Amino acid sequence: MIKKFIVGIDLGGTNLKCALLDSNLKIKAKNSFDTKSFDNKERITQGIADSINSFIFKQGLNRSAILGVGIGLPGPVDTFGGVVHFLPNIPGWKEVNIKNNIERKTKLPVFIDNDAKLMSLAESKAGAAAGYSNALCLTLGTGVGGGLIINGSLYRGKDNAAGEFGHLPINEKGPLCGCGSWACLEAYIGNNAIIKEAVKIFGPEISLEKISRLAKKNNAKAVKFWNEVGKKLGVALSGVINLLNLDAVVIGGGVSCAGKSLFGSVKETIFKRAMSVQAKRVRVLKAKLGIDAGTIGAGYLVKERLGK
Amino acid sequence: MIKKFIVGIDLGGTNLKCALLDSNLKIKAKNSFDTKSFDNKERITQGIADSINSFIFKQGLNRSAILGVGIGLPGPVDTFGGVVHFLPNIPGWKEVNIKNNIERKTKLPVFIDNDAKLMSLAESKAGAAAGYSNALCLTLGTGVGGGLIINGSLYRGKDNAAGEFGHLPINEKGPLCGCGSWACLEAYIGNNAIIKEAVKIFGPEISLEKISRLAKKNNAKAVKFWNEVGKKLGVALSGVINLLNLDAVVIGGGVSCAGKSLFGSVKETIFKRAMSVQAKRVRVLKAKLGIDAGTIGAGYLVKERLGK
Repeated sequence: MIKKFIVGIDLGGTNLKCALLDSNLKIKAKNSFDTKSFDNKERITQGIADSINSFIFKQGLNRSAILGVGIGLPGPVDTFGGVVHFLPNIPGWKEVNIKNNIERKTKLPVFIDNDAKLMSLAESKAGAAAGYSNALCLTLGTGVGGGLIINGSLYRGKDNAAGEFGHLPINEKGPLCGCGSWACLEAYIGNNAIIKEAVKIFGPEISLEKISRLAKKNNAKAVKFWNEVGKKLGVALSGVINLLNLDAVVIGGGVSCAGKSLFGSVKETIFKRAMSVQAKRVRVLKAKLGIDAGTIGAGYLVKERLGK
Repeated sequence: MIKKFIVGIDLGGTNLKCALLDSNLKIKAKNSFDTKSFDNKERITQGIADSINSFIFKQGLNRSAILGVGIGLPGPVDTFGGVVHFLPNIPGWKEVNIKNNIERKTKLPVFIDNDAKLMSLAESKAGAAAGYSNALCLTLGTGVGGGLIINGSLYRGKDNAAGEFGHLPINEKGPLCGCGSWACLEAYIGNNAIIKEAVKIFGPEISLEKISRLAKKNNAKAVKFWNEVGKKLGVALSGVINLLNLDAVVIGGGVSCAGKSLFGSVKETIFKRAMSVQAKRVRVLKAKLGIDAGTIGAGYLVKERLGK
């Protein structure tokens, strides 16, 4: 039998990650580029196509050995039409049919989706959410992205816009949010907000990675810092857990490396604020697939669309 | 062909409603009793059985013409096991297998579920949510009950505990809630909370029905009163709409009679606070089936379980 492969692409504001996956979605080869090294939209699109083609040449594959290409994008997309509506953190993208463009450049079937949804798909199939029917998967970074698994499948909503957990209000009044509203969870615990807090406490040289390391050494200020983030996250989660009777919450992204000063506080808040049946049911877990979640999720998208 | 019927029962803290439904779930006969006229759990159970049997005798039906009995209950239940965990507003019910009991008394198949879930099922099949794939149905009364329709089906969660929209926190800090947490939506807009507010504004003789009538006559205080309720409801809804990209929100229960001073304020808050794609998609609708939603929903439960 001829071996088949899938290419998974994860375009982020910082990195463009590409992976060659076998038909079981194990990574056979991967590479990564600085997103900012591409000057504009056309260069990024060409970079993606070049990366796909280079996998084929370098691995000596027949083009027909590639089942398809999956691409995760950091913004709202029309997953069935293949159109990127816009990318909040990468300028120049507005209603771009990247599917058609890459298909023309590679002669391969291309499927696209929002990156947080693909991370959720990957975690639910092969990561921390595997085996849980109803799960919320979160990526804590610049934005607070989310994806919902309902009855074992990725839940999209009619506009493929479901999962925006970062935009749950946790107060009636509060700080302005990038989405145009205010007091959304992301306005409190998105990286920009917590770095601002961190600088006040630890001075201008601090980074979130440093605070995570300090917290693991039981530095009281660092522990308290992550506790506060966890409390706010826990309030929003309590509401969603009450509403959805979730089996699992999976937390990924840079902030998830903060360890038990974050996770402990999330769990404690859920036990205080969610209803007892729902609180007992839910498991709060760290994401498993790390930086590969996006490209692996893109692989699952291809399999799903091709019915494999 | 012999005509088939279903009995739908809706046990509430105030009334026990019973309906004889034809196989299209049209009401053929109904009756209602004051729940408090039954002294205890045994009397209520006997009252339900008597009501079912009296439909059979009065309509001159053969027992085999009844496909089954559906019962909605105002609290958490094990819908598959037939057990009522407890009823917050009716004393004496704790881990009661009402299914077995009524089956013994009536020799008919009995199915039970939470009342807010059955109201949601009815509204989604034959009411305001019909034709919408993803909808949240609310009952605004003493409690703020909810049921979620996801991909066209009632969504339960593993413990049948999903739908607790009333227990979404809308602030980090706030008034204590009956559930043991605080700052839940219900703690602000459940009947007890808003009546307390109303008495402060309108004096001790006021009722919510009166405020609704006043609001419809453009009484400024009454309009403002419902506007404030709508704002709080709108904050919680904005979060859920962002998360679930809902097609519809259906609002029922006594408070839903407040009219446009409530609905207008809910919609305005959603437009201010939810993300644009989600806000544009969602329709905010008044429930259609009124006081019959519970018994009709109980009928749909029977059909669903019997695969009819």
